Amino acid sequence: MLGCGNVGGALVQLLTEDAAAIEARTGLRLELARVAVRDMSRPRPVVIPADRLTSDAASVVTAPDVDVVVEVIGGVEPARTLILDALKAGKPVVTANKELLADAGPELFEAAAAAGVDLLFEAAVAGGIPLIRALRESLAGERITRVMGIVNGTTNFILTRMAEEGASYHDALVEAQRLGFAERDPTADVDGFDAGAKAAIIASVAFGVRVVASDVYREGISSITAADIAYAERLGYVIKLLAILERGEPANGIAVRVHPVMLPITHPLASVRESFNAVFVEGEAVGQLMFYGRGAGGMPSASAVLGDLLDAAHNLRNGGVGRSLVPDRASIRPMEDLSSEYYLNIEVADRPGVLASVAGVFGENRVSIRSMEQEGLGDEARLVFITHTARERDVQATLRGLRQLDAVDRIGSLIRVIGGS
Amino acid sequence: MLGCGNVGGALVQLLTEDAAAIEARTGLRLELARVAVRDMSRPRPVVIPADRLTSDAASVVTAPDVDVVVEVIGGVEPARTLILDALKAGKPVVTANKELLADAGPELFEAAAAAGVDLLFEAAVAGGIPLIRALRESLAGERITRVMGIVNGTTNFILTRMAEEGASYHDALVEAQRLGFAERDPTADVDGFDAGAKAAIIASVAFGVRVVASDVYREGISSITAADIAYAERLGYVIKLLAILERGEPANGIAVRVHPVMLPITHPLASVRESFNAVFVEGEAVGQLMFYGRGAGGMPSASAVLGDLLDAAHNLRNGGVGRSLVPDRASIRPMEDLSSEYYLNIEVADRPGVLASVAGVFGENRVSIRSMEQEGLGDEARLVFITHTARERDVQATLRGLRQLDAVDRIGSLIRVIGGS
Repeated sequence: MLGCGNVGGALVQLLTEDAAAIEARTGLRLELARVAVRDMSRPRPVVIPADRLTSDAASVVTAPDVDVVVEVIGGVEPARTLILDALKAGKPVVTANKELLADAGPELFEAAAAAGVDLLFEAAVAGGIPLIRALRESLAGERITRVMGIVNGTTNFILTRMAEEGASYHDALVEAQRLGFAERDPTADVDGFDAGAKAAIIASVAFGVRVVASDVYREGISSITAADIAYAERLGYVIKLLAILERGEPANGIAVRVHPVMLPITHPLASVRESFNAVFVEGEAVGQLMFYGRGAGGMPSASAVLGDLLDAAHNLRNGGVGRSLVPDRASIRPMEDLSSEYYLNIEVADRPGVLASVAGVFGENRVSIRSMEQEGLGDEARLVFITHTARERDVQATLRGLRQLDAVDRIGSLIRVIGGS
Repeated sequence: MLGCGNVGGALVQLLTEDAAAIEARTGLRLELARVAVRDMSRPRPVVIPADRLTSDAASVVTAPDVDVVVEVIGGVEPARTLILDALKAGKPVVTANKELLADAGPELFEAAAAAGVDLLFEAAVAGGIPLIRALRESLAGERITRVMGIVNGTTNFILTRMAEEGASYHDALVEAQRLGFAERDPTADVDGFDAGAKAAIIASVAFGVRVVASDVYREGISSITAADIAYAERLGYVIKLLAILERGEPANGIAVRVHPVMLPITHPLASVRESFNAVFVEGEAVGQLMFYGRGAGGMPSASAVLGDLLDAAHNLRNGGVGRSLVPDRASIRPMEDLSSEYYLNIEVADRPGVLASVAGVFGENRVSIRSMEQEGLGDEARLVFITHTARERDVQATLRGLRQLDAVDRIGSLIRVIGGS
């Protein structure tokens, strides 16, 4: 095992306490041969025999008594080099490393395929939820058309608190930080970086194409207001931060993006509350599927690592190897080519002719309005629009046009509406 | 392939139309070698070359050009004998046969383990939802404590219509029949036989113990009234027909049952609507998981068969074999030993002293009342009770006691309440 933090410590605990039960259930005996850590003197919540602990990670991946390498260091280096060395040495690798896979996944997948050994990474996406195996194996024959996922627990917790308690974004974030669901610097979560990395990994597996984190269009939730949440509720929607992956006709490439979405309250993803994750998968034969569970946390992630470890051990003993994954190159569709319905909230001066000029900007840009509500705010009025399906390019042009109108004081949230009528 | 009905026909369609795409994605070329059907002259919605069609099923399972056997006949015989013969001949078997596995699962699992070949049955439970693989592989190291599933689409459709449109049980059933979600004789669905068979299979996989359909306690939904549904809604619950599997301490055995349940509206299973299925799994390390999708239908089930078929093909080519499943014997806890909260709806004469004598019967049997509501019905009153956690044995004794009271005119639904305060 390389690294021994939150996930690694939980895995050691499972391997120590449940070894006999696991062997009884599976016939496989797992033994912790070596644990490489950076600082050997650091106190740890789990007991590791001193002769198993080492600070020399490179020696672990080539040690003859190590059959499988578990990487739970995180980050790109030294994890990348260690995993490549382990694969070259013919050792299966289990990793929980989201950053690395989102950055260098294709290189690692190719190295595993070339070596003919397993590279398993269930814990890297959606923690304990067995999504990756379902996509790689159960749905190997399925033409998957779309995946939509709540893959970041922090933002889902914040949006749940805003929806259920009327909290502001700021107050919900502070509460998430107090409860340990959000980091002191919440950027990676609230700006969608974490969800974007997971989207890249899911795309590689679901569509078999090379996608890295920087290919993913990304918006966060920090501009969502309590007013947006209230409008959404009144219109029969909830607001969720989704990773959305779509495959159109082969010539069109694929679209991978992370942004807030208004979803109908009857959609299965709409009832995913608090810090839970869920991934909604649509396939041509299987129809709609959803996978729900804990997307983070030491124990759920360690459970996923353990499942992979037993898979690698089973294959070692039975002479087989799991599916290899060699993603093809694919074109990524630019965001501005996509279409959606849109929710848009703007504040305007409350005087005659303003609505006509605002509506004129929509019309000039071929964006058709499905519904509009006006609410008085003293000298101003808030206009809330839902559009018919429109092109992103045209909606962005509409926003630019609106910004040039004197009567428009503030352009609020632009939120894509999905799964509506 | 043995049989060519709804699922078989859909599989032929997938194999015919998607063969090239499947080979591109997986590197595996699937070819339909033989199809055994009972009546060769029957018209079929899919085209099968005449030289592949045979009425001699026994010859298919031993044919040297057949690498994998897919059984989609259904029912116990001749499917059981054909599968055992195929396994003995060293051929992996993929089956969608719920009745057979719920009846003779242990015998088949042992035959597969003895022959060292794959016996895969994803489509037998919850159609297209990749539940069985998740339990057998991803969660192989997990101590699963409880599984609760909406595993019958017909009854979920009926209960959804009753809850959302205020329909009576009878009207909702007639609508389900009209739409093709319910059979002309709906007994297998509405009395819980179908869900009971699936519960037995899930128990074998999740807990690794021998459970057959006749071990499963079973109640259906035909006594649920619109009034029960309305009370449930007012109290913050929905009514669902659940298969519930629980594992207590080893000495206590396991409990497997199917009956209607009142679930809090915030429970993930509560928002599973229409004919969808979902299975909620609780494990010690992984926490709560849910798997959602289409539990029936030709295409979703064929998708699950195809996933298994690719697994068997992958293992044949790579020299491995999947996990074997050799369930242990286990004691099944009798229903009367279980505990729950209960909803009970009774009609009584509306006169002084009646409530005291009714409450007295609860007290004598050590059943503590959490809440009670009384509603006038002319000369009668309806009493609706929710109990604190009580033993089934004591609640059944309470019902017997209530039946002996002159003032009690009718005992309505008894529904177990799960996941409440």
